[in-house]
Parts: sequence; structure tokens; C-alpha cells
Amino acid sequence: MEQDVKFPKKVRIREVSPRDGLQAEPKVLPTSIKLELIKGLLDAGAAHIEVASFVSPKWLPQMADAEEILRNLPRHSDVTYSVLVPNIMGLERALALSPQEITVFVSATETHNMKNLNRPIASTLQEIKLIAGRAYSENIKVSAVIVVAFGCPYEGGVSWESLQRLIEYFGSVGIEQITLGDTIGVANPRQVYRVVRNIIGEYPWVNLGLHFHDTRGVALSNALFALMAGADYFDTALGGIGGSPFSPGAGGNLATEDLVYCLHAMDIDTGFDLSKLIALGDRLQKWVGHELPSRVHKSFSGSFIN
Amino acid sequence: MEQDVKFPKKVRIREVSPRDGLQAEPKVLPTSIKLELIKGLLDAGAAHIEVASFVSPKWLPQMADAEEILRNLPRHSDVTYSVLVPNIMGLERALALSPQEITVFVSATETHNMKNLNRPIASTLQEIKLIAGRAYSENIKVSAVIVVAFGCPYEGGVSWESLQRLIEYFGSVGIEQITLGDTIGVANPRQVYRVVRNIIGEYPWVNLGLHFHDTRGVALSNALFALMAGADYFDTALGGIGGSPFSPGAGGNLATEDLVYCLHAMDIDTGFDLSKLIALGDRLQKWVGHELPSRVHKSFSGSFIN
Repeated sequence: MEQDVKFPKKVRIREVSPRDGLQAEPKVLPTSIKLELIKGLLDAGAAHIEVASFVSPKWLPQMADAEEILRNLPRHSDVTYSVLVPNIMGLERALALSPQEITVFVSATETHNMKNLNRPIASTLQEIKLIAGRAYSENIKVSAVIVVAFGCPYEGGVSWESLQRLIEYFGSVGIEQITLGDTIGVANPRQVYRVVRNIIGEYPWVNLGLHFHDTRGVALSNALFALMAGADYFDTALGGIGGSPFSPGAGGNLATEDLVYCLHAMDIDTGFDLSKLIALGDRLQKWVGHELPSRVHKSFSGSFIN
Repeated sequence: MEQDVKFPKKVRIREVSPRDGLQAEPKVLPTSIKLELIKGLLDAGAAHIEVASFVSPKWLPQMADAEEILRNLPRHSDVTYSVLVPNIMGLERALALSPQEITVFVSATETHNMKNLNRPIASTLQEIKLIAGRAYSENIKVSAVIVVAFGCPYEGGVSWESLQRLIEYFGSVGIEQITLGDTIGVANPRQVYRVVRNIIGEYPWVNLGLHFHDTRGVALSNALFALMAGADYFDTALGGIGGSPFSPGAGGNLATEDLVYCLHAMDIDTGFDLSKLIALGDRLQKWVGHELPSRVHKSFSGSFIN
């Protein structure tokens, strides 16, 4: 009888609170505060941060200062900054500021892609091909997110074939960093384990990331089952912000401190300093003006000396 | 490569909200409301409920109506009611009302047992032996809880030998139903997996239960890893009440609806009707007068027709 679960020794985390976290906040934070958040994350050990989105400010005023953020980032050779790029126009804005990585995205279902990007999946993929080619010609890394990869609010379940089709397309245009997004928080651990095992088995070239939302309290469990299935790369957001904290029932991202606390307890390295995350969470809570969803923040806040 | 995790088809839940949940509420609920809660749990599918504690009302005024609760319980042949019994005096009070099951408890560490029961472990075990003998002579089931089984606020880690000593003692006095309590919510999934595997391997006669608190957001993950290790019996409380919701950092019990939601999503039967749990949670929220910690309650409340 095996007495231990096989886990990796180290987990990589892409901190997405400045982008996926703050874009869902009703309050638009000033650029200076966003830069404070990013600096705080670096100080707490973040090596990979999603810092901005080059979406139209018309749609997301929270992200209107993407250029200013990128111009003022502290540059460190061992830190990767990602920016979200929804289309060629976004890419051109991003390219002028030399991000290390851009992230493109497409939904796993046609209906969600139509609602989110107002076009069919095939058309989004065509544009992703153009974006990737242009980014590679400038020596910029490209990562892709499959949105609603574990379940869609319009179509329900997502077939394995839908994921295969997208993964294979990404492979054909040279994108190996692929993240599965559980955008609405409906994934379950058994499903996550199966999907991750299938991807690792069938597409060993994929550098797989997982992006969970905690809508139904299952985000951490999903991350641990993904880990057990062989994944070691996660998107998380400080405090568990994201989603829509003011809509009943909506859930934010898996909280960075929740994942870090649990992994450290299991002797798995993350590169983060938990006490610094808690202290930064205290500041974030003041900036956003509401209680953070993170259970670990609630539990530890005040216990550490800042 | 295995594509699925091995889980049982069915999980047993002992609902502890009327006892472990309500005893932590600052507001003492009237007996009639407690009976409403118990009836609601039965209607939602509960087959096993911890309904009261025969602790001195001096210490826990929230539980002072234990006799009245027991006298007024709806009796169903397929439902087991448990009562917590801290000592012989509590047992005598309980026996007069013919509960189907009594639960005794002892801490895994000397310091916690002294703080909790004001006596050494050996003395508590002696009394448990007397209690068990007396209960068995009346044909009442006896179950035991090991308090702070995964970590103690005073002594820190709990050794495997400490657990062995208690399990073997319970075995020697005929108690096979043994629950490990993560009283302060410090267990981690890797540890839970290891401990459960060890117990199942070394003590196959144990009917093992797990009792998790969600202080640091890990309760559901701990339950799933226990399940994967071979356990199938859990204590949970509606809404995730318990602990001390008004102390910063304290965490309630694993929420019944959180476990039930996740298990159902993984095609594991619990006997519960999730929509009825959500509706009952709405009522519980009004009774206790504060927001329930359960993430699933927040997510689903209002989505079901009551």
C-alpha cells in the first residue's frame, strides 16, 4: 500500500491578481497602486506576473493603463511579465512595450466564444496564428488560455475533442504553453485529474497550466488533483480576488496564499514567502475596499509581523 | 497511466451542525429552532446526526437543552442520532433518553487534554472505558473522537505513536468507530492521506471517520484525500458553522453542502439533496444571524426554488 501521494518538489505560480484580479473589481485602482501591488508580489517571491490586459479601455476601464503599467515595471532578469492580448490591435499596443510574454485566449465552446469575443472559434484561432507569428518574430513568448475548459455557462459540459482540437491547433502554430481555465468554477477534482492525465499522456510537448476559480469552494482541491496528475503550473490571485465579488454566487481566482499555504504545509516549494503575501493582502484589502475571499488571509492576517 | 482516481461510490456523512456547529454560536438558539434544523436535515437526506452534547450547561449554555432535544426528536428507524458525552455524569443524563449512539472524546496530546478536560489522557481513557462498558450494557453504540489528531495548538505536531496508543486503547474496550478530528484546521492533504492509509493498513477493524475544520481553506481537500486513501465517513456541518465565526482566523466545520456538492459532481452518492441543503442553509443563516462560511451556500443560494 502506498503511504504517500506523488507530488512534485516545486510548483510554479503565475500571479494574475494585477490583471484577472483587478479587472473584476468595480473600483478602478490608480496605476501607482497597481505598481505597488506588482512590487509587493515581486518582494513576496513572484517570478511570473500577469500585469495588464491590452483589451479596449471601452470594455474594461480597469485595464486602461496597460501602457503606463508596462513602462513603469521594475525590470528583473529572473521575472517574467505577461500581458493579455485579445487581438492584433492589442498585440500592436503591447509590442511597443516589449513584454516578455503575451497570453492569447479562446473559449472551449462556440457559444462562450461568441459571447466573449463576438466571433466563432475558427476566426479567433486564425487571429491567434497571426498574433503568435508576429510575437515570435519579436522574440516574445506566447502562452494560450482555453477559457471555460471544464464547463461552459451556456453549453454545459466540454468534450475532450473540443480541448484536443484547440491544443492541436496551438501546437501547429508553435504555442506550447497552454493553460486550462475553469472560468466559472465548475470543474471537479475527478474531472481535472482525468483531463490533466489525458493531456500529459497524449500531448507530452504541452507546458500545461491550470487556472481555477473558487466559485464553489473546489479551487484548491482541483489544483491538488491537477498536481497529483502531473501538472505543476498554476494561475492564482492574491486574496482570491477576481470573478465578480459583488455578484451573488460569483467566485474569484484560487487565492495565491491559499495555494502557497497548503503546498508549503505539504513540503512543496513555491518560491513565495507566505508572511509577505499575508501582509500584502492586508494592503490589497484596503485598496479594493472589501474583505478578501481568501480563507488563509482571514486566518493569518494579524498573526504575522509586517 | 491511470486516467481516474479510485473513489468509493458512496460516502457516509454524520451531520454535526446541531451540536458542533451550534455550540460555537454566540447566540443560543431556542430548542424549537434546533428541532427545526434537525427536521430539515432529515428532510434533506441526513441519516446520522449529532444532535446534542451532555456537557455541563455551566460550560456550554448553547447545549443546555440536550434532554429536551432528545425527548422531541422525530424517531425514524433508519436514522442514527448521536450525542456527545464528556464523562460518566453526561452518560447518565444521556442514558435516560436512549440515544442510539454516544460519542466520547480524548485529545491526541496531553496539553490539549488538560486544557480541554482538565485531566491527563490516561484518566480520560479510564473514564471512557467505564462509559463504553455502561453504554454497551444498554445496547447503545459508542463512537470515539480523537481531538487535535492532526496538530495541536499547544504541542504542534502529533506523532503516529500517539494515535496508535489511542486507537489500540479504543480497540481494547470495544470501540471500533473512531473519528480523527482536525480540531484547529491544520491538517494537510498529504498528511491526511498518509495517516488514513496507515490506519487502514494497520487497524483494518477500525470504522474510520474524519472531522475537518476549514480554518485555512483546506477542509474539502483533506476530505478528498482521505477518501482517496480509503475513508468514506465524514463529519460535516450545514453552512460550515462551528469553530468561532467571530474570532479572526477561526474556521468552522467542513460545510455539508460543500462536500455534498463536490461529491455529487464526482458521481459519488451521499444520500443528501443539495437543493434542500441550500434552502435549509438560507433558514440557518437567519437563525444564527450571520453569513454562513459555506462557499457552496453563497454560490447556490437563490438559485434553487425552495
